[in-house]
Amino acid sequence: MSEMIALGIDLGGTQLRAALVTNAGEVVKRAAVSTDVTGGPNAIVAQMVQLANEVRAGAPAGLVETIGVCSPGPLDTDTGVVLEIATMPGWQNFPLRQALREALGQPVILENDGIAAAFGEWKFGAGTGVNTMVYVTVSTGIGGGVIVDGHLLRGHRGMAGHLGHMMIAPDGPRCGCGGIGCFEVLASGTNFARAGHAKGFKDGAAIFAAARQGNLAALELVRQEANYLGYGFASLLHLFSPQRLVMGGGVAKAFDLMIGDIRTKMADIVMPPFRGAEVVAAKLGDNSGIIGAAALALEYLY
Amino acid sequence: MSEMIALGIDLGGTQLRAALVTNAGEVVKRAAVSTDVTGGPNAIVAQMVQLANEVRAGAPAGLVETIGVCSPGPLDTDTGVVLEIATMPGWQNFPLRQALREALGQPVILENDGIAAAFGEWKFGAGTGVNTMVYVTVSTGIGGGVIVDGHLLRGHRGMAGHLGHMMIAPDGPRCGCGGIGCFEVLASGTNFARAGHAKGFKDGAAIFAAARQGNLAALELVRQEANYLGYGFASLLHLFSPQRLVMGGGVAKAFDLMIGDIRTKMADIVMPPFRGAEVVAAKLGDNSGIIGAAALALEYLY
Repeated sequence: MSEMIALGIDLGGTQLRAALVTNAGEVVKRAAVSTDVTGGPNAIVAQMVQLANEVRAGAPAGLVETIGVCSPGPLDTDTGVVLEIATMPGWQNFPLRQALREALGQPVILENDGIAAAFGEWKFGAGTGVNTMVYVTVSTGIGGGVIVDGHLLRGHRGMAGHLGHMMIAPDGPRCGCGGIGCFEVLASGTNFARAGHAKGFKDGAAIFAAARQGNLAALELVRQEANYLGYGFASLLHLFSPQRLVMGGGVAKAFDLMIGDIRTKMADIVMPPFRGAEVVAAKLGDNSGIIGAAALALEYLY
Repeated sequence: MSEMIALGIDLGGTQLRAALVTNAGEVVKRAAVSTDVTGGPNAIVAQMVQLANEVRAGAPAGLVETIGVCSPGPLDTDTGVVLEIATMPGWQNFPLRQALREALGQPVILENDGIAAAFGEWKFGAGTGVNTMVYVTVSTGIGGGVIVDGHLLRGHRGMAGHLGHMMIAPDGPRCGCGGIGCFEVLASGTNFARAGHAKGFKDGAAIFAAARQGNLAALELVRQEANYLGYGFASLLHLFSPQRLVMGGGVAKAFDLMIGDIRTKMADIVMPPFRGAEVVAAKLGDNSGIIGAAALALEYLY
C-alpha cells in the first residue's frame, strides 16, 4: 500500500494540536497552540482552521486525503456533534464535524479523544499485536477506549468506553460529571495533586520527584494512587478481558514508580484466569490522540 | 430460511436443563434434573448425555443440527475448557466441550451462561431491535453479557463481560472470586437474602412478599438492593453506552418493585447524554441461557 496522509487534530483543554500523519502512524509535520477555552467553539474552530492550514501549507494538492478530529466528550460520533465538554464552556450540542467540514473543505471524522488515543496505541503504539486491549489515560481526568475482538467499541452514539466514569465508591465524592465515586474523581491526576497539596507538595510532578528521592509522604501518596489505579484496572480486566491494558496520560510519566504497587493490588483482587493480562505504559505520548484520529479518518475513507 | 433445530444445554448450580430450540428461538421440547454438584464433572457430563438423549428421543435423524452448552465460568471459550466454577467442586481446567462432543457425536459450542443468556435475550427476548445491549442476571450471583455495535463481546479467551465482578466498593467485603467489593458480593440475590435474614425474613421471596404488603423493613431492604443495582447499572451505561439494559435472574421477578428506586438512583448519577437508555426486565425467564446457547450453536454452524 502506498503512503497516505491524513490531518489529525486533537482538541485538549490546554493545548490544541494538529499534525500530518502517515498511514504508518508517523507524524510528519506538527503544530500546536494554547486552546482558547474562554473563546468558545467559534474561536476554537477558527484556531483549528489556522493550525490545519499551517500544517497543510506547502503540501501538494491532494496529499492530505482526510481529516480526523478528537475531542473530550461526551460526543455523538454518529452525528459529529459535541454534546458537552465539562471543562470547556459553550460546547453543548455543537456540530463540530459539520463546522470543520465546511471550513476545511475535506471529509472530517469526529471521535472521542480517549477512543482515538486507544486506536492510535493499538495500531502503532503499546497495543500492537493484540486483539483485545483497554487503554486508560490518567491525566487531568481519566478517559480511555477499548478494543474487543479486534473492534473498537463505540456503543450507542459512539459513547462507549467512558472508563473514568466507571463508579467505584458508592460513598465517595461527587464527580464533575454528576456521578458518585467515579474512577476519575478518585484517581485522576487532579485528585492526586490535590491529595499532595494537603501534604505540602506543589503539584503531581513535585510528588513524583520527591518519591524518587525516597520522601515517605510522597511515597505514600504514590502508593495510594497506585492502589486506586490497580482497583479500577482489575475491574476493567473482568469487564473486557483484554490481553493488555495500556496506561497513558500525564500520570503515566511515573509509570515505573507505580507499577509495582499497581501489580500488587491487582494480584490480590483479580480472578486467577484474568491474571495473564499485561499492564504496560503507552508509547505514543502526547501524539496518541492525533495519530489515532488520523488513522481512524483513513480507515473510514478506505 | 427453513426451520433449523439445535440442542441447548444449560448447566446451573441447582438445575441442569436441556431443550430443543428452533432457529426462531422457540423451545419445542425440554427436560431438567437437579444438578449432581457433588458428583463433579464426570457425573454431570453423564447427566447431560442422558438429558440430551431424552430430548432428542424420537426426533428424526439429522433434525438436531448442533449443540450449544452454557455454564458458569470463567471458561476459555476458545478452547472449550471450564477454568473453574466457584460454586461447584472439581471443574478446574475441565475440557467440557471435548467431553460432550465425544459423548454426543455432534458439534458442540461452549459459552459462558451470562453471555449465552445475553445473546438469547438480544435475539428473541427483551433486547430485540437494538444494536448495543447490556444483560445483567441477578440471582445467586451476578452475571451477564454485552452486545456492542451488533457484536457479542468475547474478549481474550471469551472471558469479557464478567459484570458481577466489576468492583464497586474498595472498602467492601471480599467476594468469593477473590475481588473486593464486587457488584455480586453487594447486590446478588444471596446478599439480598442475607440482609433479610438479619431482619427476620426467611429468604428473598419472603422479603418481596412482605414488601408488597407494605412492610417497612422489607421495603427498606428492597430500596437498598435497588440502590446497589442502580449504582452498578449506571456504571455499565458509562462503560458500554447501551440503548437498553436488560435485567434477568431470580431477583428480576420483583423488577416492578425495584425499578422506581433503580431509576431514581440512576437519574442522580448517570451523565445526561446516557440517560436515554432503557432499563427493562428480561423476557425469556429460565430459558434465556438455553435459547441463547442453541442460537449461538446455530450461528457458529452457519
